[in-house]
Amino acid sequence: MTTTVAYLGPAGTFTEAALQQFTDRGAFGTADVTPLPCASPAAALDAIRDGRAHYAVVAIENSVDGAVTGTYDALVEGDRSVQIFHELEIEIAFDVMVRPGTTLADVTTFATHPIAHQQVRHWLAKHAPHAEFVPASSNAAAAQLVAEGKADAAAAPGRAAEIFGLDTLAEGVADRNDARTRFVVVGARDAPTARTGNDTTLVVFTLPNEPGTLVYALQEFAQRGVSLSRIASRPNPDKTRTYRFYVDAVAHIDDLPLAEALRALWLRAEDISFLGSWPSAHEDGRDDALAADLARLDEATAWVTAARTGKADQ
Amino acid sequence: MTTTVAYLGPAGTFTEAALQQFTDRGAFGTADVTPLPCASPAAALDAIRDGRAHYAVVAIENSVDGAVTGTYDALVEGDRSVQIFHELEIEIAFDVMVRPGTTLADVTTFATHPIAHQQVRHWLAKHAPHAEFVPASSNAAAAQLVAEGKADAAAAPGRAAEIFGLDTLAEGVADRNDARTRFVVVGARDAPTARTGNDTTLVVFTLPNEPGTLVYALQEFAQRGVSLSRIASRPNPDKTRTYRFYVDAVAHIDDLPLAEALRALWLRAEDISFLGSWPSAHEDGRDDALAADLARLDEATAWVTAARTGKADQ
Amino acid sequence: MTTTVAYLGPAGTFTEAALQQFTDRGAFGTADVTPLPCASPAAALDAIRDGRAHYAVVAIENSVDGAVTGTYDALVEGDRSVQIFHELEIEIAFDVMVRPGTTLADVTTFATHPIAHQQVRHWLAKHAPHAEFVPASSNAAAAQLVAEGKADAAAAPGRAAEIFGLDTLAEGVADRNDARTRFVVVGARDAPTARTGNDTTLVVFTLPNEPGTLVYALQEFAQRGVSLSRIASRPNPDKTRTYRFYVDAVAHIDDLPLAEALRALWLRAEDISFLGSWPSAHEDGRDDALAADLARLDEATAWVTAARTGKADQ
Amino acid sequence: MTTTVAYLGPAGTFTEAALQQFTDRGAFGTADVTPLPCASPAAALDAIRDGRAHYAVVAIENSVDGAVTGTYDALVEGDRSVQIFHELEIEIAFDVMVRPGTTLADVTTFATHPIAHQQVRHWLAKHAPHAEFVPASSNAAAAQLVAEGKADAAAAPGRAAEIFGLDTLAEGVADRNDARTRFVVVGARDAPTARTGNDTTLVVFTLPNEPGTLVYALQEFAQRGVSLSRIASRPNPDKTRTYRFYVDAVAHIDDLPLAEALRALWLRAEDISFLGSWPSAHEDGRDDALAADLARLDEATAWVTAARTGKADQ
Repeated sequence: MTTTVAYLGPAGTFTEAALQQFTDRGAFGTADVTPLPCASPAAALDAIRDGRAHYAVVAIENSVDGAVTGTYDALVEGDRSVQIFHELEIEIAFDVMVRPGTTLADVTTFATHPIAHQQVRHWLAKHAPHAEFVPASSNAAAAQLVAEGKADAAAAPGRAAEIFGLDTLAEGVADRNDARTRFVVVGARDAPTARTGNDTTLVVFTLPNEPGTLVYALQEFAQRGVSLSRIASRPNPDKTRTYRFYVDAVAHIDDLPLAEALRALWLRAEDISFLGSWPSAHEDGRDDALAADLARLDEATAWVTAARTGKADQ
Repeated sequence: MTTTVAYLGPAGTFTEAALQQFTDRGAFGTADVTPLPCASPAAALDAIRDGRAHYAVVAIENSVDGAVTGTYDALVEGDRSVQIFHELEIEIAFDVMVRPGTTLADVTTFATHPIAHQQVRHWLAKHAPHAEFVPASSNAAAAQLVAEGKADAAAAPGRAAEIFGLDTLAEGVADRNDARTRFVVVGARDAPTARTGNDTTLVVFTLPNEPGTLVYALQEFAQRGVSLSRIASRPNPDKTRTYRFYVDAVAHIDDLPLAEALRALWLRAEDISFLGSWPSAHEDGRDDALAADLARLDEATAWVTAARTGKADQ
Repeated sequence: MTTTVAYLGPAGTFTEAALQQFTDRGAFGTADVTPLPCASPAAALDAIRDGRAHYAVVAIENSVDGAVTGTYDALVEGDRSVQIFHELEIEIAFDVMVRPGTTLADVTTFATHPIAHQQVRHWLAKHAPHAEFVPASSNAAAAQLVAEGKADAAAAPGRAAEIFGLDTLAEGVADRNDARTRFVVVGARDAPTARTGNDTTLVVFTLPNEPGTLVYALQEFAQRGVSLSRIASRPNPDKTRTYRFYVDAVAHIDDLPLAEALRALWLRAEDISFLGSWPSAHEDGRDDALAADLARLDEATAWVTAARTGKADQ
Repeated sequence: MTTTVAYLGPAGTFTEAALQQFTDRGAFGTADVTPLPCASPAAALDAIRDGRAHYAVVAIENSVDGAVTGTYDALVEGDRSVQIFHELEIEIAFDVMVRPGTTLADVTTFATHPIAHQQVRHWLAKHAPHAEFVPASSNAAAAQLVAEGKADAAAAPGRAAEIFGLDTLAEGVADRNDARTRFVVVGARDAPTARTGNDTTLVVFTLPNEPGTLVYALQEFAQRGVSLSRIASRPNPDKTRTYRFYVDAVAHIDDLPLAEALRALWLRAEDISFLGSWPSAHEDGRDDALAADLARLDEATAWVTAARTGKADQ
């Protein structure tokens, strides 16, 4: 019995590296993990919906392996609900790899995924200004093109050199230092990962197309002391000129303030999907102010109960 | 066994008329009612706190029988909590009364409570411009002064003429048409009067003296669809330059949106007192929008519960 | 040529004391001041509207000389606009005064204004528990009743003893320490008193009777960093179940944030009256946060102007 | 003398089609237009900053020609400010094109831009399920690969078939009906395009990383009746865990409510860039509520001015 995990393949992508880390941390349980490479994040999510995979690992922010916006759309589309259970962040830097024996001076064609291309433009301008860009469907595929002799060099994760037997000309290439991609584990709808006190919750919703609706919706969080770590809007394909809002809240749905904010948001939204509560990848996401409020919340509830029943209290 | 009810006396005041109406409506239960006249609304509330009365009837808005601000202060001061259980409104108009035989031309002194005096100034200016004002400690006391020969005429509730054997020169005198006073029944802290769907709730609170605290506090109600029918601020005697806020919400504490608004307000307030939930005197206070929300609230709660447990729902 | 100033008389009231202090501070200019005693704050304001007085001095908060709510109503009613130009605060404490030769043991009747009566109840309960309360139309009138032999003792401002030739039995009597009344100088509509950087502005408005309108109105101030020092609602006599809101803002109408907040409030209000900007009586009203914002506001305005014209800036 | 306009090339992309429409509408003035094909939206914007182009045409929303997020980042990065002056929308559908003589049955390799690949997946699954995906650096480049014999078929804008002498096997292919891309004309900072009454304004800002800052920032718009048509957040590369917010407001910077909202936003933001006001592409963006407010704004301003000067008004 194995657990099948879909991901943006082939082997050698950053997504595969994330999958490996998730496996090491036990995110998929104790059974053996069978990776299922897919052509896109959307295809990886489809594999869950089709029953071909138990989980999928997809990039959800700042990816260089593929379009994150596609991940967002794919999370809410399709006829079966999916949900996020875990996250981690990987620092994104490329190795420049060639067939053994090739030198920088020999490089006339350079393969990368088009988005990764953006991340190494400055390096290329400096070290291989005349190399022609050969687009690849993934970072790993770029390495494969080199192995197959269809390109002279590729920018890809270090592991790709190992997989394809290439030599490394440069390590840690990234136009932008500290570029990181956030990856998540997605599965079929289920009970959320248990609350840790440092959690993230993602909801997606659409609002009536009227002035101020977004502000009032966001106030449901602010008013209850729930911080938002991120907000995005994506055009709603079902209804021209409307948007889906994707909001990351710094809390777990088992935290009362967030549960009540979500309930209130349900009342305001035309449509709303809960996409999971899971442990945050970084400590600075911990909302200590919220934690303090939670401690006082019991006192507040006791006060209301006393008032409702006429018990002495105040 | 009787129920003692304190009120602003003596017999013949508007407050006594309110007490009579409350009695007829069964606000004090089935036992006989023993009225206990007091010198002021504050004294009537003290009678509850001292155990000399089971209830008190006091004016709480737009009174002509005495200072309503005094009622507000008295509700929250004192060492035992009191609470409002019922309300009604009385239209305020005066009869001008004299000893039998006196005519308008004979009137050289005119007795009223100083505040009632404000309500009949225009009438006096027209009909008895030269009459000297004789202050009385209540409207009923003004009639008594006439009966005792200490004034020629008085403005008082019609019943006072009956009590003191006076004749009526003019009925329904009021500089301002449609002046109404709201009276409430106050008792020791107990379970609130049962929810009717058309209720009022009074809370009193103080806030940290920082910019915007009042707006954020009031948003706790607005955000949850709870209307406020009234707001007042009174200087806080315990702390210079701070204020107590008195807020009437159009809902019952058993209505979930209000209960949660109050709990949230507790978290923001330096001090907060619940002063009762009771049936509203007038139908137009019914908040149908809130009622509709209450119906949807169960759906919203079910959605959150499904998300927390991973049940299919959306 | 003299300046006539109406006030709640007769001589000897706290209002007269305030009038004297205002005169000393030059609030009425350099001409001689002729005091015009009136029967109530409303009557004092009428004297301005009638042209019988240039100014009026009235209590506006926490008064013991008469109903402050009456002042509020009177400020906005009447056919000519009036406006506040100055304020000061007076500590309220009473002297107990008798005819020469009377001792506490002789006191069987005790005269005060009914509201002042509330402030000395505890003292009376302790020192003259059996004294009968004789209501007077003002604190000074109470002293006069004693002088005329119609009462044995009175609680009144110290100066009343001097005016009426009475002896003082007790000084500084006040059930509540630190009771203060705020008095204001009112005049016909004119340019506001010049901005000092520590100012108060009063506006009165009514709002559409819909949920949340008050919160959105108050946000016009909060959003722009303008603090409110006080808010009151009074039933609107022109329209049942609606309220007039009286708001004291900690800023001058010449401060841009307040000017814009008022303009925005005008757009939300069914009715709005500007009742003046004037120097605040106490230093702790100074809003240093606002002052800091004012300094940055010029930078912000410059940024917008640059954007509008395409000038380099950012 | 010609006007050079950079765009995502080569000829045959949707961006080129947009460039042509902008030219026809006179967006670049009356001089001849010289198109300058670039490798990415970022490169097109660089061409403005470098002085190699007067304008650039880039996709800004829902593009299939390339990553729109890249456009967003590129708009605010770089040392010279750029600004949007015009927009239009193009319906996105592909033609499937082959070398003359090729039939669907012959197709074993299929070239598209990786993002366009997402839009034709369903069509491919049905009509050419076994075709291997050949990534291209743009839609036009995909057609070129077919012309060069490096792929059997391509999905590209119809005009690409014409440019490269290909035959069309299917027209209007799009997994999603009504997919549209919004393109904009970007230039060096200058005075905004004149107000039309149906305008869009883009600002980008970062906020202090504290709870509620986003809500308060958005309230600056909502409070003044300015609708937002879109909001996006992108990770801020300069500061980990912070975000740049991109907000489209339905108003022109010459509209007073928006000008004041932007000024207020400047005060709240750590960093803010104005990226232009321009005529909206679609009529339903017109904010009639705002227009009505603008008409009343003059009255409100007059009221404030009267209050400041003491003129009769109310």
